[in-house]
Amino acid sequence: MAEFLIIGADAAGLSAALQIKRKRSAAEVKVVAKGRIISYGACGIPYVLSGEIASPDKLVNFTSKGFQEKTGIVVETGREAVGLDPERREVEVKDLDSGVIRHEPYGRLLIATGAEPKRLPFLDHSLEGVFNLHTVEDLNRIMAFIAAKEPRRAAVIGAGNIGLELAESLSRRGLAYSLVDVLDSPIATWPVFSQKAVLAKIKDKGVDFRPGTAIASIEKRGEEFILHAEKEDLRADIIFSVTGTKPSTGFCGGKLETLPNGAILTDSRARTSVPDIFAAGDCAAVLHRVLGRPAYIPLGSTANKVGRLAGMNMVGAEVEFPGVVGTQIFKFFDLSLARTGLGLEEALQAGFQAEAVSSRANDRSGYYPGAAQVEVEIVFDRPSGRLLGAAAASRVNAAQFIDPAAMAVSAGLTVRDLAWFDAAYAPPYAPVWNALVSAAFQAARF
Amino acid sequence: MAEFLIIGADAAGLSAALQIKRKRSAAEVKVVAKGRIISYGACGIPYVLSGEIASPDKLVNFTSKGFQEKTGIVVETGREAVGLDPERREVEVKDLDSGVIRHEPYGRLLIATGAEPKRLPFLDHSLEGVFNLHTVEDLNRIMAFIAAKEPRRAAVIGAGNIGLELAESLSRRGLAYSLVDVLDSPIATWPVFSQKAVLAKIKDKGVDFRPGTAIASIEKRGEEFILHAEKEDLRADIIFSVTGTKPSTGFCGGKLETLPNGAILTDSRARTSVPDIFAAGDCAAVLHRVLGRPAYIPLGSTANKVGRLAGMNMVGAEVEFPGVVGTQIFKFFDLSLARTGLGLEEALQAGFQAEAVSSRANDRSGYYPGAAQVEVEIVFDRPSGRLLGAAAASRVNAAQFIDPAAMAVSAGLTVRDLAWFDAAYAPPYAPVWNALVSAAFQAARF
Repeated sequence: MAEFLIIGADAAGLSAALQIKRKRSAAEVKVVAKGRIISYGACGIPYVLSGEIASPDKLVNFTSKGFQEKTGIVVETGREAVGLDPERREVEVKDLDSGVIRHEPYGRLLIATGAEPKRLPFLDHSLEGVFNLHTVEDLNRIMAFIAAKEPRRAAVIGAGNIGLELAESLSRRGLAYSLVDVLDSPIATWPVFSQKAVLAKIKDKGVDFRPGTAIASIEKRGEEFILHAEKEDLRADIIFSVTGTKPSTGFCGGKLETLPNGAILTDSRARTSVPDIFAAGDCAAVLHRVLGRPAYIPLGSTANKVGRLAGMNMVGAEVEFPGVVGTQIFKFFDLSLARTGLGLEEALQAGFQAEAVSSRANDRSGYYPGAAQVEVEIVFDRPSGRLLGAAAASRVNAAQFIDPAAMAVSAGLTVRDLAWFDAAYAPPYAPVWNALVSAAFQAARF
Repeated sequence: MAEFLIIGADAAGLSAALQIKRKRSAAEVKVVAKGRIISYGACGIPYVLSGEIASPDKLVNFTSKGFQEKTGIVVETGREAVGLDPERREVEVKDLDSGVIRHEPYGRLLIATGAEPKRLPFLDHSLEGVFNLHTVEDLNRIMAFIAAKEPRRAAVIGAGNIGLELAESLSRRGLAYSLVDVLDSPIATWPVFSQKAVLAKIKDKGVDFRPGTAIASIEKRGEEFILHAEKEDLRADIIFSVTGTKPSTGFCGGKLETLPNGAILTDSRARTSVPDIFAAGDCAAVLHRVLGRPAYIPLGSTANKVGRLAGMNMVGAEVEFPGVVGTQIFKFFDLSLARTGLGLEEALQAGFQAEAVSSRANDRSGYYPGAAQVEVEIVFDRPSGRLLGAAAASRVNAAQFIDPAAMAVSAGLTVRDLAWFDAAYAPPYAPVWNALVSAAFQAARF
């Protein structure tokens, strides 16, 4: 029996395993993982595809052998969890080579199985030339396919942030593509402010974006795909399906409390509804501090943090995770897009008397070489003045603006507090009037 | 009589004047200023000297004529305040052309006279070839001197952040120099963490830095200066005296409460100890939120904010300034140095049971092109865990790390809060483990 059994060997699983070993070096920790490649930076996949990063290997921190040698933690790959029996304290694990199912007993269990791509009902995902962009194994298959078949035209289905990162990658590779989404806007879960910035960049870059396109069926004729949509057909030699992910929790068989989408609910210590079973990472929900309820926001940063916390708590610490504020950032060509907290639409839906104010400013003194415009929007509750969220769009790294906003949202600060924010100022780095501060002045009606 | 009289036409004075006009368009606002050039970005001066910014004109937002035409606010330049009579509600103002002193009556007065360079007892500042780096007028004189005399060797006296910015500028110009300071370290008011980073860069760049050098006297022989110090003499064709500033408040004649250095004390509404007299900018003290007492931290960002607040309050608003946390940033070659709150030494002096923890991390994912190391130090109070301050040093913009820290310090957050900080993450912009978060994990003993 594994004293500590961990299912999943990426951000959350390995963070937890390392914490357990750090806190209790004699602990017997076993990690089982479905994939053959563990411990990689999945968020880097688009930049390998673009050619900016030379090889998929660069994304991988450890092989399972290397990890085991360095840490003393057993990692078994090619093993998929297929069932959970909390009564007997066992996980059913299938050896993907032999097909044999074993029962793995545990003392304490961490579910860190991550997420899996949503499947499109009109697409046979097993066809050659149809890809997700989720794992390094996906990436290797894509690179091999491109090398062998030299596709001339791609269809990217899904204009979320991964679809947009992929679009940029394909542009850099010089591979023609259409970007298709059934919804009317790209990044539909983001604030309208951010959507507008993306739409402007899509136009600027001449991306063949087809919003509001419902695909009825996809047909393969020889090597070519024909995507049948209402208005017209689209042709492609390669299809990328990037319409989001869902928690990989089917094997739990309804034995744990989850959100409707299957994301495992936990308390602030990463404990599930069943004793001695913890969950962390993209398979789990996290508390959204502004909404005050669990939300599904799968992100590598959260997976690492909650994984670490789960590891600490599995060996008896009582550390609490206060939740997230939904901070996200991504790159789309020379546009840096970031958000934190709630957008205006979300805030109104959540019952706040929300208002939004936007502001433009330089990222540094206007007279300093390279000065670039930054646009921010802040969302706040009018009666209390509480800052509920912010979004930023700029040519420079938007983290500079969204991280302090994320801190302010986390701390429950008001737009008055933000107006007097003592931000760094020097001509090469920041302007006298930070865009966040300018927006806050408007919001506070100063 | 000016309903609103403002002494000083830079960040604080003009921000206040504009606010008064915005809130009450019929208000009679008069601004008098000692300098001929108003409304300029003094912090940009080193970058004109270096050649990065083409002309001193780029730093100037408005001429006094242009400002007056645009805003309807009267600005009189070449007028120095030389006396204050609160009983009669008058300021004595000297016309620097004619030498005539006039009495300017006021309804409400804002003192925004800024700061002036400290003078060195061993240096005749009136000698040709001796310069401060404080105003655009200084800059113009320096540029003219360099063009006419083609100095081959400079002495920079003072290794504070301005001295270091100047050193970089001279390196870029290809003008040889020695950087001299009486103290043993550069940026002596900064944390030792930051000093070490500067010392390493000084070595790396081969700067002739001479710490602990007390100059006894400076002699001019022909066009050359000889700086007599204890160990050896130094020779230079041009001298820059950049040993800090003091508030320009001599004309107040002790009629207002001040710090020992002359910085005017105000309440949270920018009101001085005398009714209807306000003060803002580099002539005034501000509340340091961590120290809980007034401090002298002259910065353009604060001057703009408090100037704006003073303007609002002079027309009857009741807006309060919560104070600063001492956020600062500057550039020294390819090093970006920033700080906020207290350094370890300051925190111990202030009576906190302070500890410091440092951490290194990449600024973005290690596999993403251009990744650079960021080093941060956080200072916290051990019993409460309260974050007291932070410092950052990196090749990339350190504002990305110090601004969220500044927000956390302002909000009174703890290192536990910082450990779970929901910072932005994407390979091109930020790493999974933000350096601040890593430091906070150590500090929190997670």
